[in-house]
Amino acid sequence: MAQHDGRGCCVIMAGGRGTRFWPLSRARRPKQLLSLASSQSLLQETYARVAALVGPGRVLVITNQDLVEATAEQLPELPRTHIIGEPVGRNTAPCAALGVGIAQRLAPGEPVALLPADHAIPDGEVFAGQLAQAFRQADAGVGVVTFGIPPTRPETGYGYLEVGAAVDGAPADIVPGVAFVEKPDQSRAELYLQGGRHLWNSGIFVWSAPAFAEAAAAHMPEIVGCLQPAVDAHGTADFPAALEAAYDTCPAESIDYAVMEKLPAFEVVRARYGWSDLGSWSAWGDLAPELEEGQRGLGEVISLNSHGNVVHVPGKLVALVGVDDLVVVDTGDALLICPRDDDQRVKDITVRLNEEGRTDLL
Amino acid sequence: MAQHDGRGCCVIMAGGRGTRFWPLSRARRPKQLLSLASSQSLLQETYARVAALVGPGRVLVITNQDLVEATAEQLPELPRTHIIGEPVGRNTAPCAALGVGIAQRLAPGEPVALLPADHAIPDGEVFAGQLAQAFRQADAGVGVVTFGIPPTRPETGYGYLEVGAAVDGAPADIVPGVAFVEKPDQSRAELYLQGGRHLWNSGIFVWSAPAFAEAAAAHMPEIVGCLQPAVDAHGTADFPAALEAAYDTCPAESIDYAVMEKLPAFEVVRARYGWSDLGSWSAWGDLAPELEEGQRGLGEVISLNSHGNVVHVPGKLVALVGVDDLVVVDTGDALLICPRDDDQRVKDITVRLNEEGRTDLL
Repeated sequence: MAQHDGRGCCVIMAGGRGTRFWPLSRARRPKQLLSLASSQSLLQETYARVAALVGPGRVLVITNQDLVEATAEQLPELPRTHIIGEPVGRNTAPCAALGVGIAQRLAPGEPVALLPADHAIPDGEVFAGQLAQAFRQADAGVGVVTFGIPPTRPETGYGYLEVGAAVDGAPADIVPGVAFVEKPDQSRAELYLQGGRHLWNSGIFVWSAPAFAEAAAAHMPEIVGCLQPAVDAHGTADFPAALEAAYDTCPAESIDYAVMEKLPAFEVVRARYGWSDLGSWSAWGDLAPELEEGQRGLGEVISLNSHGNVVHVPGKLVALVGVDDLVVVDTGDALLICPRDDDQRVKDITVRLNEEGRTDLL
Repeated sequence: MAQHDGRGCCVIMAGGRGTRFWPLSRARRPKQLLSLASSQSLLQETYARVAALVGPGRVLVITNQDLVEATAEQLPELPRTHIIGEPVGRNTAPCAALGVGIAQRLAPGEPVALLPADHAIPDGEVFAGQLAQAFRQADAGVGVVTFGIPPTRPETGYGYLEVGAAVDGAPADIVPGVAFVEKPDQSRAELYLQGGRHLWNSGIFVWSAPAFAEAAAAHMPEIVGCLQPAVDAHGTADFPAALEAAYDTCPAESIDYAVMEKLPAFEVVRARYGWSDLGSWSAWGDLAPELEEGQRGLGEVISLNSHGNVVHVPGKLVALVGVDDLVVVDTGDALLICPRDDDQRVKDITVRLNEEGRTDLL
């Protein structure tokens, strides 16, 4: 395990709904609380990866109010005051400002990592080593370090980080950032893949304390202003009311648009660990165990002349006869069948269920 | 309801396995015991159709030994001695000989109908009226009357009855039979459909008592000889042992090959009732209630850009996204997915399960 050098806090942003994993994911059991990559939930794995480096006392989890109980159940080791439930969703900028603000009270002056709760990183030790390096670099370099994943396919579903050549004397795997790049079209994604100067933006950001303070004051002063009373009240009996009041008035904004894309400079860790954002059932299937005839997933499969299917059907036999490239997900109360290349439309099912008031299935 | 004229017995042949309805059908719960066309099982519906005409005392059900209990549970009104369990399957000729033999003890000299237990006939009253007519014609005409279904498509999965023009003075819907015709190829099936001289053989036969006795003596004397002691013992304590001994030595033969195809003459009732042999999940789907976006079956469906699917998924929501013409069947312990035009291969799944010793799913 990478050595903990005593500097750094981690804020895990765990407020996502993950409707693309319906019917397994539900409002009260969203993606990050599901065991999609191992017997642990994605949140538990994310927590374990960072707590091993910085210790439980320097980890915060920000989720939504309805999920605080379920989150606490999954993370019994984490101090209860370190699980913060947003009263309403206000996109990522308030979440980041709140998280970094509270982190600064826990460990004044130390760098802070903001991390998604719902990605799969099988190589936990490699990741922890690179996170430690990012903490050091945040203090030593330009103040903000992102994590870029070397692309393996012309993916159009991710934002990219354009990077420059490594600077002489820079630590291994640290390169200067050039620009945050929006999701490209197919031809541009092919160019990015071939050019070697673009990495997938994996949504992990490490800030030095002064750099975040400066950027927040410059680009989202209103948000910081709204949240400051809540940050100041953290750990006291006034915190819930202060948080409620803060979110009541706080504008909704994305940290990417509000701050990241306006940065004059940033650095990038070129990831050496395996990674998946598990953005859909099909992406999940790519990492899942191989079953009969090359199907992937969870369940007992009998396959006759069937190929490339992804199944998540615990506790029963699945017989696939002459079907290809389907996603099949069975829960006690719902069954989903769709082609792998159409699996983003699973969201549309949740929209329909919402329209029909089927909250029992949401 | 058609009037019961006091003449006729019905032998329901209920020994089928119906593996094509896996995973719903199992060895202990074969097709005829499933509620595939209404809230009643196919056997219960068949029984109700004929008992309404001839009365419970003149109905026999022949099934296999393992299914006697389940059959009796479904038909509490039927005298228990009227449910006969074959110790082993010996194809249809012994079953017919046994059934007609016992029927002759129940109602000596009366005509006997042999009927499959697992077909769907929604128009029960029309059917009963035509069955009453067939009983009368068996005694009045050449001694054997079959039921032919006017074809509605060039079906290659059924045998056909070639028929001649109606004879002057014959009862309505009775035509002379010309030949039993094997399952045709596609081009021949098209000709049959256009020609109007071929009907689907629905597997219902009505015999006069003397005609059956004569045909059996001529074409299957060995089978009749084996079974006579069991027929004679029916209703006594010796019956089970006599039946066991009879089937131990009785040759296996099909009534179609043994007798029907050698008949010098037969007559045909041109059916005026709706009919399906429910030969597969897809055929079942054709009769099943319409669900969202034209899917058919049983279950609550949300369908997005999906067409022609057949579902049997009780007790949960099925979300179909961008899939067409699939069969989807869910039970507590198994889930089947296959294209409708490949649904005969469901049998292959049961072969696999058998090879793997998965008797729990068979």
